[in-house]
Amino acid sequence: MYSFKNDYSENAHPSILNQLVAMGLEQNNGYGIDIHCENAKSFIRRDLQCEEAEIHFLPGGTITNLTAISHVLKPYEAIISSTTGHINIHECGAIEATGHKVLTPPYDDGKLTPELIAPILEAHEDEFFVHPAMVYISNPTEVGTIYTKRELEALSSYCKANNLLLFLDGARLPMALAVPECNLEMKDFQNLVDILFIGGTKVGALFGEALVLFKKDLQQRFRFSMKHRGAMLAKGWLLGVQFEQLFMDGLYYELGRHAVKMALLLKDAMSEAGISFLTDSKTNQQFPILPNKLKALIEEKYCISDWSKPDENHTCVRFCTSWATKEEDVQTFIKDFKTMYSSLR
Amino acid sequence: MYSFKNDYSENAHPSILNQLVAMGLEQNNGYGIDIHCENAKSFIRRDLQCEEAEIHFLPGGTITNLTAISHVLKPYEAIISSTTGHINIHECGAIEATGHKVLTPPYDDGKLTPELIAPILEAHEDEFFVHPAMVYISNPTEVGTIYTKRELEALSSYCKANNLLLFLDGARLPMALAVPECNLEMKDFQNLVDILFIGGTKVGALFGEALVLFKKDLQQRFRFSMKHRGAMLAKGWLLGVQFEQLFMDGLYYELGRHAVKMALLLKDAMSEAGISFLTDSKTNQQFPILPNKLKALIEEKYCISDWSKPDENHTCVRFCTSWATKEEDVQTFIKDFKTMYSSLR
Amino acid sequence: MYSFKNDYSENAHPSILNQLVAMGLEQNNGYGIDIHCENAKSFIRRDLQCEEAEIHFLPGGTITNLTAISHVLKPYEAIISSTTGHINIHECGAIEATGHKVLTPPYDDGKLTPELIAPILEAHEDEFFVHPAMVYISNPTEVGTIYTKRELEALSSYCKANNLLLFLDGARLPMALAVPECNLEMKDFQNLVDILFIGGTKVGALFGEALVLFKKDLQQRFRFSMKHRGAMLAKGWLLGVQFEQLFMDGLYYELGRHAVKMALLLKDAMSEAGISFLTDSKTNQQFPILPNKLKALIEEKYCISDWSKPDENHTCVRFCTSWATKEEDVQTFIKDFKTMYSSLR
Amino acid sequence: MYSFKNDYSENAHPSILNQLVAMGLEQNNGYGIDIHCENAKSFIRRDLQCEEAEIHFLPGGTITNLTAISHVLKPYEAIISSTTGHINIHECGAIEATGHKVLTPPYDDGKLTPELIAPILEAHEDEFFVHPAMVYISNPTEVGTIYTKRELEALSSYCKANNLLLFLDGARLPMALAVPECNLEMKDFQNLVDILFIGGTKVGALFGEALVLFKKDLQQRFRFSMKHRGAMLAKGWLLGVQFEQLFMDGLYYELGRHAVKMALLLKDAMSEAGISFLTDSKTNQQFPILPNKLKALIEEKYCISDWSKPDENHTCVRFCTSWATKEEDVQTFIKDFKTMYSSLR
Repeated sequence: MYSFKNDYSENAHPSILNQLVAMGLEQNNGYGIDIHCENAKSFIRRDLQCEEAEIHFLPGGTITNLTAISHVLKPYEAIISSTTGHINIHECGAIEATGHKVLTPPYDDGKLTPELIAPILEAHEDEFFVHPAMVYISNPTEVGTIYTKRELEALSSYCKANNLLLFLDGARLPMALAVPECNLEMKDFQNLVDILFIGGTKVGALFGEALVLFKKDLQQRFRFSMKHRGAMLAKGWLLGVQFEQLFMDGLYYELGRHAVKMALLLKDAMSEAGISFLTDSKTNQQFPILPNKLKALIEEKYCISDWSKPDENHTCVRFCTSWATKEEDVQTFIKDFKTMYSSLR
Repeated sequence: MYSFKNDYSENAHPSILNQLVAMGLEQNNGYGIDIHCENAKSFIRRDLQCEEAEIHFLPGGTITNLTAISHVLKPYEAIISSTTGHINIHECGAIEATGHKVLTPPYDDGKLTPELIAPILEAHEDEFFVHPAMVYISNPTEVGTIYTKRELEALSSYCKANNLLLFLDGARLPMALAVPECNLEMKDFQNLVDILFIGGTKVGALFGEALVLFKKDLQQRFRFSMKHRGAMLAKGWLLGVQFEQLFMDGLYYELGRHAVKMALLLKDAMSEAGISFLTDSKTNQQFPILPNKLKALIEEKYCISDWSKPDENHTCVRFCTSWATKEEDVQTFIKDFKTMYSSLR
Repeated sequence: MYSFKNDYSENAHPSILNQLVAMGLEQNNGYGIDIHCENAKSFIRRDLQCEEAEIHFLPGGTITNLTAISHVLKPYEAIISSTTGHINIHECGAIEATGHKVLTPPYDDGKLTPELIAPILEAHEDEFFVHPAMVYISNPTEVGTIYTKRELEALSSYCKANNLLLFLDGARLPMALAVPECNLEMKDFQNLVDILFIGGTKVGALFGEALVLFKKDLQQRFRFSMKHRGAMLAKGWLLGVQFEQLFMDGLYYELGRHAVKMALLLKDAMSEAGISFLTDSKTNQQFPILPNKLKALIEEKYCISDWSKPDENHTCVRFCTSWATKEEDVQTFIKDFKTMYSSLR
Repeated sequence: MYSFKNDYSENAHPSILNQLVAMGLEQNNGYGIDIHCENAKSFIRRDLQCEEAEIHFLPGGTITNLTAISHVLKPYEAIISSTTGHINIHECGAIEATGHKVLTPPYDDGKLTPELIAPILEAHEDEFFVHPAMVYISNPTEVGTIYTKRELEALSSYCKANNLLLFLDGARLPMALAVPECNLEMKDFQNLVDILFIGGTKVGALFGEALVLFKKDLQQRFRFSMKHRGAMLAKGWLLGVQFEQLFMDGLYYELGRHAVKMALLLKDAMSEAGISFLTDSKTNQQFPILPNKLKALIEEKYCISDWSKPDENHTCVRFCTSWATKEEDVQTFIKDFKTMYSSLR
């Protein structure tokens, strides 16, 4: 059964696996102090156009988030997230486990704005309340939408004006960069955010994420925080090798564009058939609201994820494409979808 | 320069890498709920001869230790370790970061005994002191020595009699099992320890460790603790595939035996030359005490690690062999060593 | 300037201070192991009609909450609170500092119901989410309303059916018990809640709260948690002496009734004048919504607290009476209020 | 039975209790923002001769230590203490509960020196080890000895040279100041330590300690840390009133001198009889090593504490005098002691 469940259903991109095999019994220093990590960092710094950026490689998303956030915050400081933010709901309280409250607006659509943050700041005026010190956003968001460069500039200015650090979780970063309206390039981030998470797991790596610390004072002793949270891999070069392959010649961005392209094919086909969507996602996650009968038919041949239940007769589901999704499999699905759709008329 | 620095200097054993390549675009469920993890668990349970054991795969050693220990202890409970225990000195306070004190005897040689533990229990009588609730040991220890089955039985009985859980960190487990005097088999552990860490990183995996929880009450909701500490890998099957290969047909034990065999060749050659050792290690870590001049010569051609400084003219160093150490490289070293040694007469 | 700012503006009830003076140089054992604590516990157990209840005395509200909650929860477990719950907003992240997420409904009026809790449980189904394990309520609530016995029974049944512990923060407990519609007695709690916080600070003590643990498994080693969190007072008998005086002959309940009676005089006077209120509080906190001009006049002679800003011309304020509020001062205020109110016509 | 068990066996000094009674129904602002706290802070700043010092009042010793230490340290930083340090053994892991490791020399006699600290710094060189960032000492120590001004200067210089903050726990501060050889005055501390804990509980207060933060960067948002750890008292002025009385006219130092004087009477009498002591304490804690039979006789009439068991026939015990110890009671004891001692010849 073909799976559109998520973008981490397959092993790594062949260029990564081939490189790992080609290395044979090559010996490397442990803990991320090796030539592959150095190369990978150079490539990423080149793309960021920022020589001062400090870059670290960590094994997964949750541990990247919790290590970065707890490294930076003082004990009584809190982080502001959208209600759908990965750190707020999908990490089993990993941020709170490091002692920090996650603050959210009562409701939001997956994206934070100065307007949503302002009332939180106003309500946290003195020592009876936690002190909001950081804003966490995901781009693309957990519901497939994006922050455009303009939106990010507005948020960034607001954060600077209010002494809030800005942390961008880019677990699917190249899928945002692939959207023309997004208008963001890697070189923009140094002026927009303080901490940038460049995801590997969902973009063709076996596993691993890169964390970029732009500010000197945030960089201090980050390797201590990594070790202290269990985020430092003994064979650290494994992460270096993967990011080397991904960033050497732009493979990373190409994989993002491919995933998005595949998703838009799905979106267009379902839109044409009159299916509506939870959000107007332009990235590799699509959230169509399906009649239950159609959903049942689809699930006979395809794996997808349930997202929410807008009414008794419909279910919002998630289709997720990846670097590994083949266009022929998408076309097969589209054909199947049309047949199934017609059969229910 | 050839490295004897540690047992995690090379990528994975070829059978693992080949299997990863062979999988192609095979799709798997995320988060360790997949057929490869299931297979690997079956193989390990078979070797443990314990169907009730619950097994989880985690990405590295420190995060395995901190997740297991914090899952089990109450906030005011402490863990007893040898002074050289990995959790006590080599994990940047990762256990304390979860809120738990690590208690040690004032001095020890890397191994805990009832005699060393008893005074700690006596000194922690009431609520002014933390409550010791768990004993942590490594087998082999961080200085290459081993607990024999008989020693482990004595420690285990003492722990049971004193309501102490026993946690065995087997980051290099098969190197202990490879020592005849050790006399331990996988099937013995269910009666000896409560929690068993079966290391992969140092035994031919790319990365990853297996954690075995023998007791029902310790098993409850362990996956929550994994997620909560950032220890759950999205592409969890990667760990399953590796342990599948390692445990399918006994490769794991074979790699341990090989590493030990290579180390003993080194040990014998240096012993013959009259070099003394920090400990009488029968495993893959050897701690010769070298005259500084000899050390300098060796380091012109080989990477080794400094361990301690017994006097001004000598340095204790660590030679570490691995699954990947070739006998021909060991023989080349031995030849070099003899030449260097003679040149200093 | 007379203060209606809160119920902890004055030192202790004279019977407490007199007793402390009368003790002279009486010597007592430290850390709450003394005759005064024993007596106080007996009196409270008598009122609870529950011999099995374990009772501890702690110095303040926040530390009582954080010690009790962290003693009981496993690391990955969360607590459900109303959005206005003291632990959610007024304790500077003290619960999160112990590693636990506080979950709230998107909106509520200060009181939790099974209907508000159910969607939270449904949304937290597996290990990607924290595991809700406890419900925290305050009675009276932070906005002066109460849970009646019937409401508490419904909530209690729901919690039992869903494996949720129920923790009642009674920082102002006797003010709830003083409300006839509440219909609660001390003897009811053993069947309704798992943990009961009986407040002293806001009910005539110098400082200190009593914590009641009804269940055997929650009682285990609580003194370790107290010491571990810094909640154990060296001169622990100071708390015993205070609760001895408060519970010996029912002074505690009397002080609660007095505070409520004084507040209702204020409420009636303002209601008669047509002032509306944020909530229909029957306890010692009253939240009138005052025209800004009237508020300004009042604040020339009285201290009150701002609560919220419903519109540009009105401010919701809090009047809080206490065990120490004299009826003559209330009557003076009422007279002043009427004069001020008329002057603005 | 008269107790020499500790220096917190009696309520407060009469001047404190009388003042509390005299206040009647005086109303004060909550949370330490009141005139009494202001006055007390002024008196302490006057004695410290340091206008920039920030002072806070907290309810007890353990919570003062854990709040101060966790306010200042980064997550991966550790604190160095003597093995007998209060934070190391007597606080049930309260510091570790905030995530920080406590490092100790293998053995020491209660006092830290640069010589004891240096090997700890050397052994903690990189991110595999916690980062030692603070030194914790008690003056007097837990075994009654003192740091002289000269010793403190040496330690302070060493700490400055090695980027270590120096925290002095003065739970019994005036007992050290009372020793002529100590040669320390309050005005010296601003140049010697970064954080000073001025104890009240053991020096005639009902409860409460003052914490002095000398450095601007350590002062920032300390009230947040207090609230966050449950260390902020609602009726904060209670602490202000006590420290007002203690520091207004030097009562604090007088009480320290008195306690020490009483202890030295005990010491002299026992010394004369040939009793030896664990340490040469010149403060209010004396640790005589008593023949078991003599100890048994004494305990028929007096409460004392067991400390250690040097051999089968002797027990080291603690006699502790306080501000409240009357000279007539000491003389009665001395008489009794002589009789008992003679009876055993």
